[in-house]
Amino acid sequence: MVPKRFRSIKNEIRMLGIDDCRFVPHTRGTADIVGVVYRGGYWFEGIMCTKVTIDGMDATEKLATMVKISPYFGELRVIVLDGITFAGFNVVDINELYQKVDLPVVSVVREKPDLEEIRSALKNLPNFEKRWHFMLNAGELFEVETRNGENPVYVQTAGILREDAIKILKRTSTHSNIPEALRVAHIIASGLSLLIEKV
Amino acid sequence: MVPKRFRSIKNEIRMLGIDDCRFVPHTRGTADIVGVVYRGGYWFEGIMCTKVTIDGMDATEKLATMVKISPYFGELRVIVLDGITFAGFNVVDINELYQKVDLPVVSVVREKPDLEEIRSALKNLPNFEKRWHFMLNAGELFEVETRNGENPVYVQTAGILREDAIKILKRTSTHSNIPEALRVAHIIASGLSLLIEKV
Repeated sequence: MVPKRFRSIKNEIRMLGIDDCRFVPHTRGTADIVGVVYRGGYWFEGIMCTKVTIDGMDATEKLATMVKISPYFGELRVIVLDGITFAGFNVVDINELYQKVDLPVVSVVREKPDLEEIRSALKNLPNFEKRWHFMLNAGELFEVETRNGENPVYVQTAGILREDAIKILKRTSTHSNIPEALRVAHIIASGLSLLIEKV
Repeated sequence: MVPKRFRSIKNEIRMLGIDDCRFVPHTRGTADIVGVVYRGGYWFEGIMCTKVTIDGMDATEKLATMVKISPYFGELRVIVLDGITFAGFNVVDINELYQKVDLPVVSVVREKPDLEEIRSALKNLPNFEKRWHFMLNAGELFEVETRNGENPVYVQTAGILREDAIKILKRTSTHSNIPEALRVAHIIASGLSLLIEKV
């Protein structure tokens, strides 16, 4: 698929960061997903939510729908995911997500994923071939030093040139080594998990 | 009560902004409350949640408990509320909240409240005298122009000098005429309301 080419990357580029809430692994049910919209690295703009099935196959579709029905859809320029597996091993096909919403997708993780370990885990689940195909379809993993002197992050992309993805990550990682939209999505998802458990 | 005096107000002062989610008025039940922690006007730091009874009497106590059990308690310097009534007419006694958590409390609203109208509404509820006492106990309402050339906000305080409250409001109202912690608490509370209704 042909990636989008950014003519210019605004400092206040609208980015959606997506992370999942805590859930009980290996159970039937869903996990809550939180999406946070930032303008660049300092301006919180909005929030959206959905649910995906634990270890299910619906993450790509659920994320696409969440994005498309949100009031921020028209302004968004890029989606950043906390890895490509949500709610356990519900694997996002980032190329399909890109096609469905017509927005570049960037997966960012702080630890280098161990593909062999993931492959073994996926083998215990139905639809192994399909899940593994999504994993491989996410393309080459590359390292990005988003902030000088801090730990690098590991990145996969769909629908965006690598150089543009790197520029966007560096520009929006203002308070940590990951983009602010993703850092805040993670904090909110963790906080909501507590809410759901406690009250 | 003697207000706290700030020796200096840091740019990255830790502030908690509190707002309520949507709820069905005049019903039995609770409304979700969202608290957002910011460092100054640009740095999202955390989230906390609780529930208060619709038109109940437990807001002061519930907010105090939420603040005290949160991991951010030790770092917080000031609490900013979206007005002093939550979940309908569950009135916060801001002086009591100040005493309970030992943090200054600032109520900020964008529209000038009509006290006579509120008084009439409170008359339809049990414990009118107590609720009205909390309203009066919040002290004098004053106008603050947090951003040059934008609409002023209406402020009441407990445990803080007026000049300090004004400084803090001006410094943290970075993207609108209210402090960023409160603006973002409002966005998240609205977004969660949608989540609760939809899924």
